[in-house]
Amino acid sequence: MIRPRVMAGVRVTGPLHIGNYWGALSNFVKLQNEGQYTCFFGAMDWHGMTTAYKNSQEIAPWTREMIAEFIAWGLDPEKSTLFVQSQVPEHLELFMILANLTPMGWLERVTTWKDAEEEARQSDTHNLGRFAYPVLQTADIMIYRGEKVPVGRDQVAHLEISREIIRRFNHLYKAKMPEPVPLFTETPILPGLDGRKMSKSYNNFLLLTPEEKALKKSVNSMVTDPARALRENPGTPEVCSVHGYHKLYSSAEDIKWVEHGCRTAGIGCGDCKARLFNNIDAITKEPREKKKELLNNPKLLDSIISAGCAQARSEAKKTLEIVRSYMKF
Amino acid sequence: MIRPRVMAGVRVTGPLHIGNYWGALSNFVKLQNEGQYTCFFGAMDWHGMTTAYKNSQEIAPWTREMIAEFIAWGLDPEKSTLFVQSQVPEHLELFMILANLTPMGWLERVTTWKDAEEEARQSDTHNLGRFAYPVLQTADIMIYRGEKVPVGRDQVAHLEISREIIRRFNHLYKAKMPEPVPLFTETPILPGLDGRKMSKSYNNFLLLTPEEKALKKSVNSMVTDPARALRENPGTPEVCSVHGYHKLYSSAEDIKWVEHGCRTAGIGCGDCKARLFNNIDAITKEPREKKKELLNNPKLLDSIISAGCAQARSEAKKTLEIVRSYMKF
Repeated sequence: MIRPRVMAGVRVTGPLHIGNYWGALSNFVKLQNEGQYTCFFGAMDWHGMTTAYKNSQEIAPWTREMIAEFIAWGLDPEKSTLFVQSQVPEHLELFMILANLTPMGWLERVTTWKDAEEEARQSDTHNLGRFAYPVLQTADIMIYRGEKVPVGRDQVAHLEISREIIRRFNHLYKAKMPEPVPLFTETPILPGLDGRKMSKSYNNFLLLTPEEKALKKSVNSMVTDPARALRENPGTPEVCSVHGYHKLYSSAEDIKWVEHGCRTAGIGCGDCKARLFNNIDAITKEPREKKKELLNNPKLLDSIISAGCAQARSEAKKTLEIVRSYMKF
Repeated sequence: MIRPRVMAGVRVTGPLHIGNYWGALSNFVKLQNEGQYTCFFGAMDWHGMTTAYKNSQEIAPWTREMIAEFIAWGLDPEKSTLFVQSQVPEHLELFMILANLTPMGWLERVTTWKDAEEEARQSDTHNLGRFAYPVLQTADIMIYRGEKVPVGRDQVAHLEISREIIRRFNHLYKAKMPEPVPLFTETPILPGLDGRKMSKSYNNFLLLTPEEKALKKSVNSMVTDPARALRENPGTPEVCSVHGYHKLYSSAEDIKWVEHGCRTAGIGCGDCKARLFNNIDAITKEPREKKKELLNNPKLLDSIISAGCAQARSEAKKTLEIVRSYMKF
């Protein structure tokens, strides 16, 4: 049975937060375990470098940590190919091929570039690397002959330019490289700790695999319903960010208890947060141990990374041969 | 003795013409033979691809032919490192590093890009690859830790952006990568066959290593002084393109004979051209044989190319290690 190829990656920007989990990693694990797909999952460090180039020394440890977290939360190097983008130089060869056939106008019109130009100028990231991002992303997918790309519905536009570039390649070289289609995944909207949308730039996110102490601090900092200024004031769970997290991490029973207690002022916000802390902590315990075990055993982690990259490279080399034979290059 | 490193390349766009020789290759040979430098000379096929991507099948044979011509005209694989750009993937890794620290504004202001935008749009090469050219060129030099780059005085601006990018790298990572300086070389202005400036786009150039028949055709097509409409009209050598070529290929004695004969109508244009043909043919004979020998012996040529690329890669890998250690990446 030939299984369709799924390719996805996470940009390396620091330790994973729960947005990365619910929006990406949890779906990767599902796709892997369904067993219908040949899966390639990458820690995309070149993409991380586009904005973090000034603190380049952070990229390598973040990347190792990401692979450790991938595994800790259920990706299995025996079932999926886990790789580090910069260790598969074929991505860049394909990037350079695609760069020549990608009109500047296509890139100038990409909304994530257009809308971010001012921010990019201010943060000193109005650079070629960031501008060229969609072409590298296309190479990332195409180098594994990716057919399906798990994305949230809000991200489908990002895939469109990759489809266009691959179509142009196919047209120019009478080639038949797969045009990747989105595999829509559930991406719940996550509340930030402060009740705003969760975002790296607001620094209001919850880490995916925090230490107990950091987890406690994050939960305690969560903004609650301002109507509950006093313990005896009843509240509205729907406007409280703590409640949003309960929906992700707590049992139906707990959620019922929390909702009832909040509306009736039967429990205080402290009780609600303590329960949330316990539930997240319980779920996080095993991955936290697993991650620590990997990071404390660098030889093991390195050998897993090397094996994954070698597997990825062997596929990438095959693709590059196919690509070059279409181009007669 | 540590010899300064010279790096130069020729963009792969087809068989070499005499402009490539007098503007570049002849200087490479001189630099190599002076023995003061460690020399890296490349056939830059990624750069060729920026404009030739639609006829990608031509790049590989053109590249082989270029290396054969390099050797035929005096570059010696024992003395210089001769390489093919696309066979040294480290160029692209360094490119990606530099892309992240190169502001878009620097590239938008490059005159060869700005002035060519309209032409690029019309020829369907207004693409990312062509826009990114100066960054790849910088990586080409820096990957060999190039200190000197032979250029004509009119090309010094091209090197300036590479110096700027490398300075920014050094500044950001407290690094000490050499900032390449121009090594000014003589670049005689060459007349085109039709008397206009020689240019690929006018299709008025003389091939460097033509077959006898093609050489005869080219010489016969050279535009002469229109004042010599009749055999008995005297002419002015300075306005005749044939005379321009005599100055490159003929002996002082022959030049004297031609000038006198032209001014006095003592010889006809046919005589003048026949002498030029003989002189170019004589100079070209040996390189032509050598080039043919290499192209007819693909195993030998391949082994020379492989050895050169292996040597280049070993230097490029060293550089990348240095670069990554500065960046802690």
